[in-house]
Amino acid sequence: MIAVAPRPVRSLDVRIPLLEANDRLAARNRAAFRQRGLAAFNLVSSPGAGTTSLLARTREDVGRKSRCAGIVGDLATDRDAERLRRPHAQVLQIETGAACHLDAGMVARSLEALDLDGVRHLFIENVGNLVCPAAFDLGETCRVVLLSTPEGEDKPLKYPPIFKSADVVVLTKIDVAEVLGFDRPAAVANIRRIAPQARLLQLSARSGEGLAAWYDFLRSAALESDAC
Amino acid sequence: MIAVAPRPVRSLDVRIPLLEANDRLAARNRAAFRQRGLAAFNLVSSPGAGTTSLLARTREDVGRKSRCAGIVGDLATDRDAERLRRPHAQVLQIETGAACHLDAGMVARSLEALDLDGVRHLFIENVGNLVCPAAFDLGETCRVVLLSTPEGEDKPLKYPPIFKSADVVVLTKIDVAEVLGFDRPAAVANIRRIAPQARLLQLSARSGEGLAAWYDFLRSAALESDAC
Repeated sequence: MIAVAPRPVRSLDVRIPLLEANDRLAARNRAAFRQRGLAAFNLVSSPGAGTTSLLARTREDVGRKSRCAGIVGDLATDRDAERLRRPHAQVLQIETGAACHLDAGMVARSLEALDLDGVRHLFIENVGNLVCPAAFDLGETCRVVLLSTPEGEDKPLKYPPIFKSADVVVLTKIDVAEVLGFDRPAAVANIRRIAPQARLLQLSARSGEGLAAWYDFLRSAALESDAC
Repeated sequence: MIAVAPRPVRSLDVRIPLLEANDRLAARNRAAFRQRGLAAFNLVSSPGAGTTSLLARTREDVGRKSRCAGIVGDLATDRDAERLRRPHAQVLQIETGAACHLDAGMVARSLEALDLDGVRHLFIENVGNLVCPAAFDLGETCRVVLLSTPEGEDKPLKYPPIFKSADVVVLTKIDVAEVLGFDRPAAVANIRRIAPQARLLQLSARSGEGLAAWYDFLRSAALESDAC
């Protein structure tokens, strides 16, 4: 096995002040969420892991009873926001251009544009990316990392920073696990190994399997400030 | 629709010199590939899009007849390299740590560690990420962007930079398109719209459908210096 170390990243010098500035804004967001009694979820996943589908289903099943809001990050298009927006669900799209993640400042400015009166759940759908969002605290109450069965069992081992930072790991698309030859016990073992701190949920937004536990978690997160 | 512009990225000042340095090294890699009569493929995809599976199958079907080599980028683990390595296929793993993409310097240093005598195809599997690899030329002969059917039809619209930079777009896992409710004509229309310059291939490494066209492309890329 020949090991090749990556070239030192020259932008490292500016990354630390950048992250410190981000963390200050994140702390401010977190305080604002707490003051409002609002649970904010930072949802991180690969492209196409089913995050928007889960949110669309959640909006229908839960959003009519308790007000929720969303912030959706994508490089381009407002498709996800359009897909999620309803009279009872405000959704704001952030088009990041080339930026590979949301940061606390983007969220802070979005908060100013949302009417959060009475909102109990704020869903922040990050840019589809298992790498860059790991380093950027948004001030969220809970960080939710989604892994879809088509991606394979080994992703927690290959993308450890994001899984290590998760409060909750959601294994999605379990309805197609079998047809894809997905080894669920191996995936669960990998998640437990890399993210022993995280609550694990397994569900399918399409079949509805496992959604009850997801909704239980959302309810408890809105009621208890230390649910994550 | 309320638009929120992303916060200006403070590291932008250092990105341009960084990219210029990368482009210089990429030009050097490209010249080295040309001199050796070797076709180098930069394979970019989301995590779990089936790139390693396609390479494993390619290694078996083509690699025994003509020598090939691989460079595999991951944040952590050497699982992909272990999976691909065979007596007739050298594979080098780059563990990038937190870096969200490969760069030309990492590839240049890997080339020194590989025995490229007689090698016709060099497969460079980038970090699983549809965002960051877009800006980093590795000096590749062809940039191949893979999109798997479970990711959904809209990904070219949501991640335009990487698709706009593709020489070839490969739609993978077409064997499970139907069970996933994947709208193939819509996906093809989105690819054609965002990446009209790219050759489009559709295949399944599992069922073997579409592989003949992939192998034809690999052969022509090794024969013609301007195949991409």
